[in-house]
Amino acid sequence: MTDRRGLLIVLSGPSGVGKGTVRAAIFENNIFNYVYSVSATTRKMRPGEQDGVDYYYVTRSHFEELIRHDKLLEYAEYVGNYYGTPIEKIEENLAKGKDVFLEIEVQGALKVRERMSEGIFIFLAPPNLHELESRIIGRGTDDMAVIYERMQKAREEIEMMKHYDYVVVNDQVSNAVQKVNAIIQSEHLKVDRVVDQIQSQIRDYFQKGNEDL
Amino acid sequence: MTDRRGLLIVLSGPSGVGKGTVRAAIFENNIFNYVYSVSATTRKMRPGEQDGVDYYYVTRSHFEELIRHDKLLEYAEYVGNYYGTPIEKIEENLAKGKDVFLEIEVQGALKVRERMSEGIFIFLAPPNLHELESRIIGRGTDDMAVIYERMQKAREEIEMMKHYDYVVVNDQVSNAVQKVNAIIQSEHLKVDRVVDQIQSQIRDYFQKGNEDL
Repeated sequence: MTDRRGLLIVLSGPSGVGKGTVRAAIFENNIFNYVYSVSATTRKMRPGEQDGVDYYYVTRSHFEELIRHDKLLEYAEYVGNYYGTPIEKIEENLAKGKDVFLEIEVQGALKVRERMSEGIFIFLAPPNLHELESRIIGRGTDDMAVIYERMQKAREEIEMMKHYDYVVVNDQVSNAVQKVNAIIQSEHLKVDRVVDQIQSQIRDYFQKGNEDL
Repeated sequence: MTDRRGLLIVLSGPSGVGKGTVRAAIFENNIFNYVYSVSATTRKMRPGEQDGVDYYYVTRSHFEELIRHDKLLEYAEYVGNYYGTPIEKIEENLAKGKDVFLEIEVQGALKVRERMSEGIFIFLAPPNLHELESRIIGRGTDDMAVIYERMQKAREEIEMMKHYDYVVVNDQVSNAVQKVNAIIQSEHLKVDRVVDQIQSQIRDYFQKGNEDL
């Protein structure tokens, strides 16, 4: 399969849905050898984190240079720090035939879609909105106004679902992992990805075969 | 999921590739509750066969009536007997939200594609043409001219692959079964199939939610 480009897999979904947990579970026993796309950030490295594993830690001026030279698939600024997806490693791995896995916020995913529309966009959805509400409350607020605001944001994000290819409901992490893997496996089986290979097998057989038969 | 139409799954491939074996293995422990589409035939019932299980056994005049009333998705005549796919049961099961599974020759599959283009068409391919040649020889001929003719037919059928959605290489039956199931599962996760359901969840939540928040 190394003669073929890998797939870009984008896992996204509203905040609170459990993207990080599902992604971690997929990479725990990464049976399909996906390459995880490590983001770049200007925030400081925290204890236990590793450069090139959790993030690429770069200076603000370096990050802005990446922006200027169009070397980020998408980026955003949160609380004074930049976060972005370096395009170079992704391209390198895809060209080697490796599947690259991106876990990203909804807005970021839509930007990625604009530039790499051939990616496989998977929307991770909450089992229902009451469940999402509980998870948001679990993250440490019971201010009704804050909850309402976050739920409105979730609603907007869920409505972005239509720009994705697949929807996986995160009812249980192990189910979600299994479904994501099934999607990726099935994408590899699409006829366009294998037709050339099989055509060339046919040519080989009938060139050699004619001598025997 | 009962409010949604089921999927029509068409498993096809060249003669000798092992379609029947893969289909039997899928239905051995039919964990996904596919409904098998039973063909109609005018050939006589053989010992051990059951009407409505192996085939619907009908008279020639009944079969020709089915043809005249356009009640077959496709049909063909082999060695003096008709074989065809009755459309009524398929429609009935799809309408109930059940996935209907069809195992069929390449020519038949292409006819089904014309009428039910929304089906999921899976081409079962041999691991390579030498393997297919061995299987054809294993079926009891060593006449080179016959083998060559069958391989030419297989070549033509393999070239029909481009009209399918997916290709599964039948290297091992258990692998092929797993792949077919992954394809069907992933087709169920396509955004178009779930978007309405989730939109209506959102409406429900925000109608009720507003009272609480």
